[in-house]
Amino acid sequence: MFKILDCTIRDGGYYTNWDFDKPLVDQYIQSMNQLPVDYLEIGYRSIAIKDYLGKYFYSPVYELEDLRKKSGKKLVIILNEKDIRVEHLNEVLGPVRGLIDMVRIAIDPEHLGRALILAEGVKKMGFEVGFNVMYMSKWKQYGDFIKELKNVDGIADYFYMVDSYGGVYPNDVIETIGLVKAETSVKIGFHGHNNLEMALINSLTAIEHGAEIIDATVWGMGRGAGNLKTELFLTVLNSKFGLPVNFNALGNVVNAFDAVLEKYGWGTNLPYMISGSNSLPQKDVMDWVTTRFYSFNSIIQALQNQKEKVKDNETLPVFTPEKSVKEVLIIGGGKNASEHAAGIKEFIKSRDNITIIHSSSKNAYHYKDLDTEQVFCLVGSEGHRMEQVFTDLGDFNGICVLPPFPRKMGTYVPSNVHDKTFELEAITFTDKFKDSHTALALQTASVLGAEKIYLVGYDGYQDFPITQKERDLTEENELLFDLFGKQSKEKLVALTPSRYKNLLADSIYSMIYG
Amino acid sequence: MFKILDCTIRDGGYYTNWDFDKPLVDQYIQSMNQLPVDYLEIGYRSIAIKDYLGKYFYSPVYELEDLRKKSGKKLVIILNEKDIRVEHLNEVLGPVRGLIDMVRIAIDPEHLGRALILAEGVKKMGFEVGFNVMYMSKWKQYGDFIKELKNVDGIADYFYMVDSYGGVYPNDVIETIGLVKAETSVKIGFHGHNNLEMALINSLTAIEHGAEIIDATVWGMGRGAGNLKTELFLTVLNSKFGLPVNFNALGNVVNAFDAVLEKYGWGTNLPYMISGSNSLPQKDVMDWVTTRFYSFNSIIQALQNQKEKVKDNETLPVFTPEKSVKEVLIIGGGKNASEHAAGIKEFIKSRDNITIIHSSSKNAYHYKDLDTEQVFCLVGSEGHRMEQVFTDLGDFNGICVLPPFPRKMGTYVPSNVHDKTFELEAITFTDKFKDSHTALALQTASVLGAEKIYLVGYDGYQDFPITQKERDLTEENELLFDLFGKQSKEKLVALTPSRYKNLLADSIYSMIYG
Repeated sequence: MFKILDCTIRDGGYYTNWDFDKPLVDQYIQSMNQLPVDYLEIGYRSIAIKDYLGKYFYSPVYELEDLRKKSGKKLVIILNEKDIRVEHLNEVLGPVRGLIDMVRIAIDPEHLGRALILAEGVKKMGFEVGFNVMYMSKWKQYGDFIKELKNVDGIADYFYMVDSYGGVYPNDVIETIGLVKAETSVKIGFHGHNNLEMALINSLTAIEHGAEIIDATVWGMGRGAGNLKTELFLTVLNSKFGLPVNFNALGNVVNAFDAVLEKYGWGTNLPYMISGSNSLPQKDVMDWVTTRFYSFNSIIQALQNQKEKVKDNETLPVFTPEKSVKEVLIIGGGKNASEHAAGIKEFIKSRDNITIIHSSSKNAYHYKDLDTEQVFCLVGSEGHRMEQVFTDLGDFNGICVLPPFPRKMGTYVPSNVHDKTFELEAITFTDKFKDSHTALALQTASVLGAEKIYLVGYDGYQDFPITQKERDLTEENELLFDLFGKQSKEKLVALTPSRYKNLLADSIYSMIYG
Repeated sequence: MFKILDCTIRDGGYYTNWDFDKPLVDQYIQSMNQLPVDYLEIGYRSIAIKDYLGKYFYSPVYELEDLRKKSGKKLVIILNEKDIRVEHLNEVLGPVRGLIDMVRIAIDPEHLGRALILAEGVKKMGFEVGFNVMYMSKWKQYGDFIKELKNVDGIADYFYMVDSYGGVYPNDVIETIGLVKAETSVKIGFHGHNNLEMALINSLTAIEHGAEIIDATVWGMGRGAGNLKTELFLTVLNSKFGLPVNFNALGNVVNAFDAVLEKYGWGTNLPYMISGSNSLPQKDVMDWVTTRFYSFNSIIQALQNQKEKVKDNETLPVFTPEKSVKEVLIIGGGKNASEHAAGIKEFIKSRDNITIIHSSSKNAYHYKDLDTEQVFCLVGSEGHRMEQVFTDLGDFNGICVLPPFPRKMGTYVPSNVHDKTFELEAITFTDKFKDSHTALALQTASVLGAEKIYLVGYDGYQDFPITQKERDLTEENELLFDLFGKQSKEKLVALTPSRYKNLLADSIYSMIYG
């Protein structure tokens, strides 16, 4: 009989930044005690990384002691080979001896040699050792990797094939197992991703061809499209092979993760299918999808470009305005820029040297007929939206600006406006969210040399309940306003109702008559 | 090259009761025009069924005319063989000649003979004919069915194997294709369900073994766990076989169904996995899951019982109270029964002949210490909840009532209260929602011969936004109050704040001092 390793907390941490409510973890441990699962992977252990990463990225000793007490299963942590060297092992693993049964190592096949040295150190400390070797669909291409495979015997207790892109099929599983078995007699494991809903059939195929350990997670929770679902795997093993399963315990742990699923919404979708199907890295896709900064369509476009190796990044002339402007009005996508459009237009007409910056084209049609100079920020798929807003771009007399070259999501500029389109040289006031609408608009205002910067249509979210994603976007804007404020002497003043506390508040109506 | 049939509107109708917003359908038609899909199945055609069923259950001519104009694809409708006879064909299909290219027939394999007669009629009217034959996992068991297979030649253009339970594996697909091919040379089709996430691999396997048409739906929308996802199938055909796919069109149609998915939330989950894996009908599971009347765990329990053929229905003594009571107080699960518990208890103590009926055990612990007679309605998993509420059932001195025998979801009675448990003889005032908490409570009140029926904790949903499911439950209660009112002279009086307009309103506080 093969073994089952559940890595819900470790791999699910990609969604929660490795923080989970303790009652949820306790429920998980308690349910798993009643289920035919052999190993539980609780998290990473790591040297300090300069960023906030949660509890189960470091898996502190007090937590492992608590879980050791509560769990009847073998406990596992994983190390990122790229971050950890032999000299770190005492610090990272010394304190968890006796608490942890197996240490897995996430390994890029290009660094198998280095990983073997690390693994030897881990093995000497008395742990079982699992190799999680990524990119199985590309192993054939690495000659050195294949030659080194024989050296894993005696060091690795399990040698996992990881379907990193989520794009392998049963035949690939069979072929790769053959490749490994030709070189070594190590026990083989399989960690399947579910981009193409192939995780179950690939896992069953792996078992049929001699794999001795399989990874799964509750609801498939895990990076990107997620993994083989523990509940699916156990249900099928029960009906196909008679494995005894306590379905009430299984139902309990699945239920317990319902709310987490609702909040983070992992699972496969078209962008993950495309990336999986074409062996494109899903790390980018996960960022694009979960922040929802980019529309589904622009993600698909970018993936398609990557896939077809279309050069989707062109260098544009750098935006260098000939003269400074006195005032800038940034028009955001909030509904107040549409509800107060008449007043905002009166305000614009009352100024003698003002430039409009549309951080989004969402409200732009209200301002089409103005003579004022207008700049459009084309982030992501904003070019497509612009085409929808301006049904005829023939008489477009604005200017478009894009983020600096090269752009992660490619360059889409409607052909009619191409000769009026520029890119910024750099985004200088922030390291985060550089390719957001707001960052682009603020930087443009700065390049324009504006003495005063007004904003309309930056409502913040006024209707409750707001979603996590809406909140993230609000927090992103807040941060950008703060960072911009630290570098510039110009104050940011909201002229329509706004919930952003770090904008000064005034009213377009007071400005018209003031 | 095989054909692709997209049946999103027809099969997705199981969730929407065959009503879809017209702009959504238009977007669907427009996107499909740009995608390599051959047939679109729009809905059912049917003789009149006595129940509200939406537009695409009847697919009226004006709608088909409109879609015919807008769509460049072959259009398909489906007939339920069980409802339609040859004599209905003129009425049902006459008006759609020239609009519809193919007529499919949903067929129980036990009625293949009867279906052949119907199909011949359809064929004579000039339509392509598709057979959608259900329960492919059981075909082997039907000797007559196998013998009749040769007769489909010349009548059926496509002969679909339908994985009704969503439980077949690639090997079963290969075996079943062999079974059919041994008897007939009809073109084979495959309609896969996704309970076990096998729809894609089963479809690919079917193609590899000669299937010539495959069904799919957007986001997999379809009865129960749903179908092969159109976007997954096309993405894989694109990367594996170079099928040209317009991913922007595909992204548009997937996006368009986002909101529908969010509302109805189809897709596989543990109950569907269990039913699929064990060839248990998913119609019941769909009802249980989507109305959420039953907890996940009680569904799993019921499925497990079905699977293990555990006799989970026991006949209990019929509830026949020795004497009538004057007044009944029904305590619901709303929070007002907990917030006003002190007042409600004073009210109870002030009455000389009142019986409490707990329609849910949710608030029961507040009333544990009263001497008053208490009846507990045990619907679905309510027995489990009761065990949680009363940590010690040893000194339980109430009475439990259950719905009449046999109970769809089985019988769960905590062992400590078994000798105090009864079942109702019948639910007489309603045909719908007979196994709901409220129906059980009202019927019990009626059996007790109460002259006055008060309710507390029937709040209705006071906090907005409410979910579809909450609304459904509210409407269900409203209907039950109405129906009960029609049969009984006793008025239903809510004594705590309630949004139910068909309850009379009074206050526990006025009753105490009144």
